[in-house]
Amino acid sequence: MTTSDVASTWDAERIRTADKEFVIHSWSNQGAVNATPIAGGLGAWFWDYDGNRYLDFQSQLVNMNLGHQHPKMVEAIQAKAAEMCYIGPNYAERSRAELAELMAEVTPGDLKMSFFTTGGAAANENAIRLARHVTGRQKVVARYRSYHGATAGAIAMTGDPRRWHAEPTPSGVVRMFDPYTYRCSAGHPDPCPVCTGGPHLEEILQYEDPTSVAAVILETVTGTNGLLPPPPGYLQSIRETCDKYGILLILDEVMAGFGRTGEWFACDNYDVTPDILITAKGLNSGYVPLGAMTVNEEISGWLMKNKFWGGQTYAGHPLACASGVASIEIMREEKIVENSREMGQRLRAGLDGLAERHPSIGEIRGLGLFQGVELVKDRSTREPLVPFNAVGPAAAPMGAIVAAAKKQGLYLSANNNVLRLTPPLVIGAEDIDLAVGILDDVLGIADEAAATA
Amino acid sequence: MTTSDVASTWDAERIRTADKEFVIHSWSNQGAVNATPIAGGLGAWFWDYDGNRYLDFQSQLVNMNLGHQHPKMVEAIQAKAAEMCYIGPNYAERSRAELAELMAEVTPGDLKMSFFTTGGAAANENAIRLARHVTGRQKVVARYRSYHGATAGAIAMTGDPRRWHAEPTPSGVVRMFDPYTYRCSAGHPDPCPVCTGGPHLEEILQYEDPTSVAAVILETVTGTNGLLPPPPGYLQSIRETCDKYGILLILDEVMAGFGRTGEWFACDNYDVTPDILITAKGLNSGYVPLGAMTVNEEISGWLMKNKFWGGQTYAGHPLACASGVASIEIMREEKIVENSREMGQRLRAGLDGLAERHPSIGEIRGLGLFQGVELVKDRSTREPLVPFNAVGPAAAPMGAIVAAAKKQGLYLSANNNVLRLTPPLVIGAEDIDLAVGILDDVLGIADEAAATA
Repeated sequence: MTTSDVASTWDAERIRTADKEFVIHSWSNQGAVNATPIAGGLGAWFWDYDGNRYLDFQSQLVNMNLGHQHPKMVEAIQAKAAEMCYIGPNYAERSRAELAELMAEVTPGDLKMSFFTTGGAAANENAIRLARHVTGRQKVVARYRSYHGATAGAIAMTGDPRRWHAEPTPSGVVRMFDPYTYRCSAGHPDPCPVCTGGPHLEEILQYEDPTSVAAVILETVTGTNGLLPPPPGYLQSIRETCDKYGILLILDEVMAGFGRTGEWFACDNYDVTPDILITAKGLNSGYVPLGAMTVNEEISGWLMKNKFWGGQTYAGHPLACASGVASIEIMREEKIVENSREMGQRLRAGLDGLAERHPSIGEIRGLGLFQGVELVKDRSTREPLVPFNAVGPAAAPMGAIVAAAKKQGLYLSANNNVLRLTPPLVIGAEDIDLAVGILDDVLGIADEAAATA
Repeated sequence: MTTSDVASTWDAERIRTADKEFVIHSWSNQGAVNATPIAGGLGAWFWDYDGNRYLDFQSQLVNMNLGHQHPKMVEAIQAKAAEMCYIGPNYAERSRAELAELMAEVTPGDLKMSFFTTGGAAANENAIRLARHVTGRQKVVARYRSYHGATAGAIAMTGDPRRWHAEPTPSGVVRMFDPYTYRCSAGHPDPCPVCTGGPHLEEILQYEDPTSVAAVILETVTGTNGLLPPPPGYLQSIRETCDKYGILLILDEVMAGFGRTGEWFACDNYDVTPDILITAKGLNSGYVPLGAMTVNEEISGWLMKNKFWGGQTYAGHPLACASGVASIEIMREEKIVENSREMGQRLRAGLDGLAERHPSIGEIRGLGLFQGVELVKDRSTREPLVPFNAVGPAAAPMGAIVAAAKKQGLYLSANNNVLRLTPPLVIGAEDIDLAVGILDDVLGIADEAAATA
């Protein structure tokens, strides 16, 4: 069977029909799904079978840091496929060993040993179980605006409303607030107890018993639910509070890691090293399912003397690890982190320009190519353009902006009242400018919705 | 970078060193890991860098049904890599649509729509959540000898002692016994309430409130923990009891599916169709991480009108789905199911011959190329050769058998006192006979351990 044979029978219509009849799509009412068949992609662009091209300002699910069909990634996968697609996780294997060594190199501080999973959720699940075993404690502190994955353990730590539909979730998770300075739940006094991190965590620990808490798990930069980079000092303050009580700090950088923020890892922006770092997505741009849990020297030492109670059939998958090795090499060769920083500055400058013309822009925030635009009805009251977790007509203005952008060839995403701008890190200046131009156009919808609200 | 460049720097010693220093291996004390670097494999064989060749009688983790490096699988992965490694799960995609259509074709009864995950655990997690939403009920009945995966929801349903180290697990799971006829907990009267299925389940439901139970989840043939095919009538009896109370039947065929038992699916041996079928491993031999949840017409209809609350970044991964399509095509073209049945018979005949010479063989059981050999100290008392969940010296005889077989080039696995014989389904008669010959030799260790016990 060759690709051309397939193309002849599987045209767009057949794909659409089979998809509609047989595929269950994530987080959807299947009757309402009308999924466009996608024909291909390259770099920051992808296209459908009707010749419509889209500038991918989401990197799909914020995973394609190297863009679509990077030739060196394709080559590495093909070469590894010819050599060894799979061997059991109990064996030593070249790509697995090489990627683990590379992870110790590129991650900050004394992060050392890695367990490779098939994605972020499984890596988070393993991190929590390990933290419980290492500390002998049970509770975990997590934030309300987090998303850590959809399996039972991961969604229990998730604050995102998708958790509601998995409840009752496993017990032992305690919630804290994010440092959402624009809408601080504490009213953001100066200094703010919530947004400085430590004081808010301290208060919670006082009520929970700090000696019962195994770990604090945070997205270094909150991703899906608002795109919230912590203010200066926040992470250090959380780190210090954890250290004070022997609590492990787990940073989930599934979205924020691997160059997204203009540094290799988001925590590099704050000079903080977690005890456990969780990555996926940008780890290999998702070309093959892969996630990683990387632990520091101390936990590595613990693991040399104690049993690790986790496993997956596809742990340390050779094909996935080979694509991870290739991805790190490409990041180094093509200076992807530097490009993220530069293009992030260019995007930010463009957005700042838009803020002057669009009263619906309440706040622009982010690092590197991880930018969020929060839309409001009124800048002085900061009333969100659409309410939290809105569906149907209440959410309409955001849907209209995303749809209008797509019509002009810009693939955007929104969560609540925040537009998330997360293009592939290989993007060039011309495409950044193109996107800013389209945003300028479609933000008129937001201005109008705000004016008529 | 080419493969030969890599080979020059990453020799066996460097792989071994980096593995030891940086890789966390599943279910292990890392200090005790001394993993052999594996250089390659083909068909039922794989080999290390020292030229030692192993006949893979485990199919690694019972996943490589098509064996190592099947050329058509490699070709399909390479072709898809060139075309499209990844697109978001919200889009329609050729391989995803094609695999979903094929799943509806090859799975029994009215199983129809599929959600593709990165492995069995995530598929099981989704099945339970969906069953709870569809029925509006919370409890799940699962068996003590099951293994359903290591994420919090999957391990809560798992009976296997690995669960102990994840406890406390999410609530709502009720345990029932497996139809372990050789060691029936009810004493196996005729008719046996446990081993006929329905009566045992009925008694439990009476204590639990049948209207509170969303689903019964079973491995159709218990895999890891004993290799237990249900006796005739068992599955039908469970199916009828589920139907009586509106309880969904979920069959986990992660190990037993896709030809392993000499039928396409293990439930085909019993003419029972589940409401939800879970597959992974043999679905694509694990060449790319992939799992599937396939649901029947009624649940498909429910999903057309209600939201599916599950998702993964790598759900319906194109590269994984393309390898699944290729795998099903290969299974049809090369009559893999038929070969599993024939070679299973040959293996079984060989094992029956061994039973005549080796008093340590208590029972041989299985279907197709899913065979287990239970070893005992004494056939009349049926005392196991090693105790349940034994470690250290107590487990030594089983470890010695596995090690002696490996020394002779046969890669075996054991769990408790049961040898698990699960070679790739592409295996030929010569390799079956070779394995039986080596087993004949190494079972002397079991006989001796039994005699001196």
